[in-house]
Amino acid sequence: MSTIALPPSPKAGSGDGVTPFKVTGIVNYDRLIEQFGTEPLTPELLDKFARITKREPHHLMRRGIFFSHRQLNEFLDAYEKGHPVFLYTGRGPTSDSLHLGHILPIEFTAYLQSVFDCIVVFQMADDEKYYFNDGTDGKKELSFEEITRCGRENTKDIIACGFNSKKTFMFSNREYSLGCREYQLFALETMRIIPEKKIRAIFGELNTVGQMMCPFYQAIAAFSRSYPHLFGDKLAYCLVPYAIDQDPYFRLARDIAPRMYPCSSEKIDLDPTRKRKMGLLKPHSIICKFLPPLTGFAGKASSTGANKDSTIFMSDTPSVIAKKIKKYAFSGGGGDGSMADHVKYGGNIETDMPFQYLRHFLRDDVKLEEISKSFANGEMTCGQIKEILVQVITELVTEHQKRRSLVTDEIIAEVYSTK
Amino acid sequence: MSTIALPPSPKAGSGDGVTPFKVTGIVNYDRLIEQFGTEPLTPELLDKFARITKREPHHLMRRGIFFSHRQLNEFLDAYEKGHPVFLYTGRGPTSDSLHLGHILPIEFTAYLQSVFDCIVVFQMADDEKYYFNDGTDGKKELSFEEITRCGRENTKDIIACGFNSKKTFMFSNREYSLGCREYQLFALETMRIIPEKKIRAIFGELNTVGQMMCPFYQAIAAFSRSYPHLFGDKLAYCLVPYAIDQDPYFRLARDIAPRMYPCSSEKIDLDPTRKRKMGLLKPHSIICKFLPPLTGFAGKASSTGANKDSTIFMSDTPSVIAKKIKKYAFSGGGGDGSMADHVKYGGNIETDMPFQYLRHFLRDDVKLEEISKSFANGEMTCGQIKEILVQVITELVTEHQKRRSLVTDEIIAEVYSTK
Repeated sequence: MSTIALPPSPKAGSGDGVTPFKVTGIVNYDRLIEQFGTEPLTPELLDKFARITKREPHHLMRRGIFFSHRQLNEFLDAYEKGHPVFLYTGRGPTSDSLHLGHILPIEFTAYLQSVFDCIVVFQMADDEKYYFNDGTDGKKELSFEEITRCGRENTKDIIACGFNSKKTFMFSNREYSLGCREYQLFALETMRIIPEKKIRAIFGELNTVGQMMCPFYQAIAAFSRSYPHLFGDKLAYCLVPYAIDQDPYFRLARDIAPRMYPCSSEKIDLDPTRKRKMGLLKPHSIICKFLPPLTGFAGKASSTGANKDSTIFMSDTPSVIAKKIKKYAFSGGGGDGSMADHVKYGGNIETDMPFQYLRHFLRDDVKLEEISKSFANGEMTCGQIKEILVQVITELVTEHQKRRSLVTDEIIAEVYSTK
Repeated sequence: MSTIALPPSPKAGSGDGVTPFKVTGIVNYDRLIEQFGTEPLTPELLDKFARITKREPHHLMRRGIFFSHRQLNEFLDAYEKGHPVFLYTGRGPTSDSLHLGHILPIEFTAYLQSVFDCIVVFQMADDEKYYFNDGTDGKKELSFEEITRCGRENTKDIIACGFNSKKTFMFSNREYSLGCREYQLFALETMRIIPEKKIRAIFGELNTVGQMMCPFYQAIAAFSRSYPHLFGDKLAYCLVPYAIDQDPYFRLARDIAPRMYPCSSEKIDLDPTRKRKMGLLKPHSIICKFLPPLTGFAGKASSTGANKDSTIFMSDTPSVIAKKIKKYAFSGGGGDGSMADHVKYGGNIETDMPFQYLRHFLRDDVKLEEISKSFANGEMTCGQIKEILVQVITELVTEHQKRRSLVTDEIIAEVYSTK
């Protein structure tokens, strides 16, 4: 376990700008923990993780980027006892290429898959993107065909993040709900028990009934009951890695859990003494912060909106990556930002975005600590730290593109198969 | 065409107590026409109906019980020109047996089927009953299995109303939406384009997302696009007979129509110049009043609520029918209700429920006019008119039960088949 002392993210701002649909302003993560009712990921819990899994916690855990959780403790206990476990994550396909912010939790999920050697279910939330890109609220209307096309492209990026294709099930939410009776009935059952007012209380005002259905599908995907071809009627413990804006879906899932049947009500014995709701296992979560945009800590890296131009995509060329970093990355140079002041006062690693990006993407703790010290005492210039970031990101993206080019139609068919 | 002058239903009360989910108080049908924006069924339109179809309008049309419509004129024109037409109606299955109030529009639909010699689609709105009988609002929680069982029983009653099984397609909304991709995609498309606020404006506050989805399924069933196995990609004109409380569903359907693709967007050529919304044919309707309860004009005959005990079911025995009529039917005896006063002042056919029931169920215009005169001038007593109603209803129910007993599993399988 690393003992490196790294500065926390800024604490200014509130959690008010964070919903599953947008993130604005500077995020106050401590306040979000309080507001959402999640737990902090403590050093003790990281030790327990290391002890039970016999693996070093991922650098994103060690560095406080995965910073919070819901009942991770109990998930680890279940795993230790040999209970069946699985991982769930997802993607809303609206662009051809993923960007660095998307890749973080996906690669982390692939890491967890190797740790727990377990099934990953990966939901392509195409229905959500269909309902939220309906030509209102200033968003372009996307056809389902366009969303499906993006989903197909994104699939290659996702598989390239290192999943074990033998143990990974990806699904289009629409196709799976049209094709798997059990999954669709589960969704319909949940839509009976949660008041519509509660959905609006959790997710804010939603425009259409289509939009109101989306949270149910995101929530039920965290239950083994949704995958009869993987788990039969067995209950399995689910761990969901996500950025904190997705937490409302899992609050909903945990709310539903005790009120649901363990399998389709069609399969429940009709003997009334046995026909009681036995409840499902509440999903567990491990929660990360957002990748900030290169320009500073307001909002998050995004393929739309104000931060679009500075966002680095997994399809970017080395020269584009270098240009974006050099043009947009906010520098935490010391004093008035002049070289003299920087040498005199040292750089500010808390506000220097190249350093913050290295916290996310440079895996080597020793190197990161060297850079931290060297930049903080003014030895390393803003230009030099940017150069290091260019190298790290270029290597990461280039490697990703190589792996992506190896994703064949057969592998895609394999991960989408329900056989 | 009959020239018999029959009194209108009372005009007191407002339409405020009428929603698709309940009917309370005395209904003011003129006000409902105005409020809902439907058109009155005029003698001229009845003449046109007779001329084009070469059939005498049904006694429920002649007697003002089917009293309103939406674009029936245009439907008749389309039929006259030889365009494809079909009829749509439905039933929400919550009780084992239908009652007289249910039978009226169903038998009327079978009559229209014989008039137009066309396909009838009949929706078992089981999902609606599932979502609205969820154990809240003082209603018992019904399992889907229970609703399905009721649906199976109701199917026999419905077929016994005289449909041509070769041209009738009945479907469970849930099973059809799980099984027919085209139908489900159509529902999902509509849920994208209608704001949730509009659903609440039309249907009032609904509790759950499940409840909010129901109107879309009721509405889309009025379009030929929902039945590719019957109509392929052809547009057919739809006529829907319904009691006026169901009108909001068809306002929604008519609202959706111009904004929808004529077939699944999956089938639309992706050439952007052709990919425009071409619109669907708005459904047409012919609208009836409620069968009042035997006890008087407040509310409607119902298998639940205050009027439950007085409601005559199609499964009732002759002695039960006689008892209900004698015990509950409100008599419009003249004066103070004594025999002397009745003879002196004559009976009031406007308030006498046995007479009002005869208006609905005695097909013979001449007999009805005789009874009307004889009761109004005090010659026929309240006891005698009740006896006549007992005979008429007993014969109607007994004949129905005979036809119902002839409904075989093969016939049921035939009408539910999508082959």
